[in-house]
Amino acid sequence: MEPDLTQLDEYLDEAGVDGYLVDADSEDADQYYLSGFDAPDPFVTLYDGDVRLLFTRSLEYGRAKKEARAETVERGADFGYAEKAQEYGPQEARSRVIAAFLDSHGVGSVATPPRFPLQTADGLREQGIEVTADDSGAVTEVRATKTDEEIEYIREAQRANEAAMARAEELISAAETNADGELVLDGAVLTSERVTEEIEVTLLRHGCALDETIVACGADAADPHDRGSGPLLTDEPIIIDIFPRNKRSRYHADMTRTFCHGDPSEALREWFELTDRAREAAIEAVEPGVETDVVHGAACDVYEDAGLPTLRSDPTTETGFIHSTGHGLGLDVHEMPSVAESGETLQPGHVITIEPGLYDPEVGGVRIEDLLVVTEDGYENLTEYDIELAVA
Amino acid sequence: MEPDLTQLDEYLDEAGVDGYLVDADSEDADQYYLSGFDAPDPFVTLYDGDVRLLFTRSLEYGRAKKEARAETVERGADFGYAEKAQEYGPQEARSRVIAAFLDSHGVGSVATPPRFPLQTADGLREQGIEVTADDSGAVTEVRATKTDEEIEYIREAQRANEAAMARAEELISAAETNADGELVLDGAVLTSERVTEEIEVTLLRHGCALDETIVACGADAADPHDRGSGPLLTDEPIIIDIFPRNKRSRYHADMTRTFCHGDPSEALREWFELTDRAREAAIEAVEPGVETDVVHGAACDVYEDAGLPTLRSDPTTETGFIHSTGHGLGLDVHEMPSVAESGETLQPGHVITIEPGLYDPEVGGVRIEDLLVVTEDGYENLTEYDIELAVA
Repeated sequence: MEPDLTQLDEYLDEAGVDGYLVDADSEDADQYYLSGFDAPDPFVTLYDGDVRLLFTRSLEYGRAKKEARAETVERGADFGYAEKAQEYGPQEARSRVIAAFLDSHGVGSVATPPRFPLQTADGLREQGIEVTADDSGAVTEVRATKTDEEIEYIREAQRANEAAMARAEELISAAETNADGELVLDGAVLTSERVTEEIEVTLLRHGCALDETIVACGADAADPHDRGSGPLLTDEPIIIDIFPRNKRSRYHADMTRTFCHGDPSEALREWFELTDRAREAAIEAVEPGVETDVVHGAACDVYEDAGLPTLRSDPTTETGFIHSTGHGLGLDVHEMPSVAESGETLQPGHVITIEPGLYDPEVGGVRIEDLLVVTEDGYENLTEYDIELAVA
Repeated sequence: MEPDLTQLDEYLDEAGVDGYLVDADSEDADQYYLSGFDAPDPFVTLYDGDVRLLFTRSLEYGRAKKEARAETVERGADFGYAEKAQEYGPQEARSRVIAAFLDSHGVGSVATPPRFPLQTADGLREQGIEVTADDSGAVTEVRATKTDEEIEYIREAQRANEAAMARAEELISAAETNADGELVLDGAVLTSERVTEEIEVTLLRHGCALDETIVACGADAADPHDRGSGPLLTDEPIIIDIFPRNKRSRYHADMTRTFCHGDPSEALREWFELTDRAREAAIEAVEPGVETDVVHGAACDVYEDAGLPTLRSDPTTETGFIHSTGHGLGLDVHEMPSVAESGETLQPGHVITIEPGLYDPEVGGVRIEDLLVVTEDGYENLTEYDIELAVA
C-alpha cells in the first residue's frame, strides 16, 4: 500500500519544521503506516519528503532493507553507536545517533505524534534538535482517509467478523436451559468464555487475530467495557462485540449485536427498539461534510426524546447512553474521526462505527454496532448481519 | 496480585520527586502492573505511596471503582473537564485536569516511564509540573522480579506453549513429501501459515492469545524475525518460535525449537549441535549475582570457538549469532533483564529466555530457546520439551 502523504507535506510546511519523527514499534499504527515495516521493537522513522528508517541495533536492518517502503534504511553502526555507547551509555548514545542521523539529512527540527516517547524527545533536545509534539497527530489524520485498498482490507475483516458472529449466534440459539436459567449446550453450561473461544477460533480460521472479545450477559452487559464471564442466562441480554484484525493486512473490523435467548423483558425489548432507531438515525445523518457531533446528536435525540439520560444531557450519568456514538477504524480499532460531541468533519474514505447503546444494572445492556465507509454522496454500510434480539 | 512497590518508594526518594506518573492504556505493562486495571484506552495512574487513578472521560470510571487495585479513582468531571475543554480545547483541558489532580494530592514533580507521551509531559510542564523521564524505567525494574504467583502464571502459559509446539511437531512429523520437496499433509501442502493456524488454535484452546508466531523454513529461517510463509520443505530447518499470552493472567511464555523433516545437511546438524551447546553453556552460567553479559558471553564463546561470527566478535556481521542470548519475560514478551552484552545483574525471581541461534541464507537458521526462572541458588528451567532436530 502506497499512502498519499501530500497532507503530511502540507502539515510540515505549515508547522515550519524540517521533518516528522516517529519512534515506536509497528504495533503503533502511525509507525506501520509511515514506514511500511513490521517490527516488534521500537525503531525510528523520519519523514522529510522521503521516508527514512533508522535502527539503533542491527537485528532488523537486513530485513528492513529488503521489505520496508523507504527511501533509505540506516543503522546505529553507521553513526558510531558502539563507540558512543561506551562513552555516554546506551541512552545518550541513542539520542546522539538519532541526532546525527537527522543532521545527516539536514533536519534540525521535527514534529512528532502526541504520544512520542518523552525520553527520546528530551534526549534529542539536549543534542540541539527542536522537538514539538504535534497537537492532533498529522499521520493519524492522514490515516483517517482510507484508500480503496484499505477499504477492501476492512471489508475482508468484517466478513470474518460476520462468520464469527454467526457462530456465536448459532451456539446461543442451539442452547437449552437448566433449572437455574443457565444456557446449556452439549451437556455443559454455555459460558461467556466458551462462546468467546469459538468466536476466536472462527476468526483465526478466517485469517484474523484478536486479543479481546466481549460476550457480556445480564449485569456484565450493563458495563460497556466488561468483557463478560461465567454462564450465559436465558431471558437476559447478551452483548457480543467483536473487533478482529486481519493478520495479513493488519486492518480491523468491528461489529456488535445483542441477543436474547428465551423471553426478553418488556424493558429490554423497548431498549432494543430504541437502540436500533438510534443506530438508524445516526447512520442517516452520515455524509461528507457533516460534523460528527451531528451524527452523535441524532442518536442522543432518540434516547433523550424517550426520556433516557445521555452523556450529552447529563455528563455525570452512569446509566443510559454513556459513551459516544462511534469511532474511526483502520490499523487501530479506535482512531480518527471520533463520532462524538467533540465533532470532526466527515470526509469520503472515513471508516466509522455507529454503535449506540443503553446500560443500566437493572435492565442489563443493549448495543448495536455497524461499520460504515463515508462515500462521495453518503455512506456504504460494510456490515451484512441481521439485527434481531430474540434468537431462540 | 499485590505488587511489592518498596523499590518504587526508594526510587522516588532517590530521584527527589513527589510521584511516578503513567499515561497509557493497559497494553502498557507498567500501567497494568501499577494500576491493576485493564482498559483499552489511555488513562492516568499516579503513584505517590498510594496508587491513584484518573480517567479524563467517564466511560471506565464505574468499572475502575469496582475493579482497580487503587487507593483513589477520580475522573475529569471532578476537576471541571467539560468547562476547561470549552475554554481551552480538549488537549489543554486534559493537561489542566491532570495538573489539578496532581495538585490535589500535593504532587508538584513526577518521574515517568521513558516512553511517557511527550504531549502530556509538555502540557503538564506548561501547568508548572516538573516532569522527568525516568532513565531506566523504575516500574519496569520492579516488574523484572517476579512473585511466586507471577512465576505460576508464566509456568501455566509455558504448558500451553508446549501443547502448541507438540501440535506443530506432530503436523511436520506426519507429513509426506511431494516431487518439489514440499511437505504435504491430508492431501494439501503444509505451509507455514497452516502450521501457525494450528498452533494458535491450540493456544486459544488452552486459554492463551497471541498475535504473532514464527514458523520459518529454509531461507526465511535465516532471518531471526521473519515469521515465515509458504510451503515447508523437507531437509530444511524449520524454526518455530511461540510466545503466547495467557488471557486471564496476561503473562507470557516463550519457546523456540528447530525441526527438520527428512535429512538435515551436515552443516545444519553441526549448527544444531553447536546451538544446543551454546544454550547449555549459557544456562549453566545462570545464577543470582551473575551479570548477564557473562551468560551471553558463554553462548558467544561456543560459537566463536567454532569459528563462527557473533555480534560480540563483529558488530556489523549479518550472519552467525546476530542477536543477544535472551530477554526477561512477564507482562511483556521482552522486558528486563536483557541477557546481552550490556549486562544486568541476575536476581532471584528474574524470568529470562536463553535462545542462542545461528543464521545464514546459505544454511538457513537454527534457534533453541528455553525459559528459566532465576532461583536463590541457581535456576529452574520452566521448559519441558525435548530438543531434537530430526522429527521424521
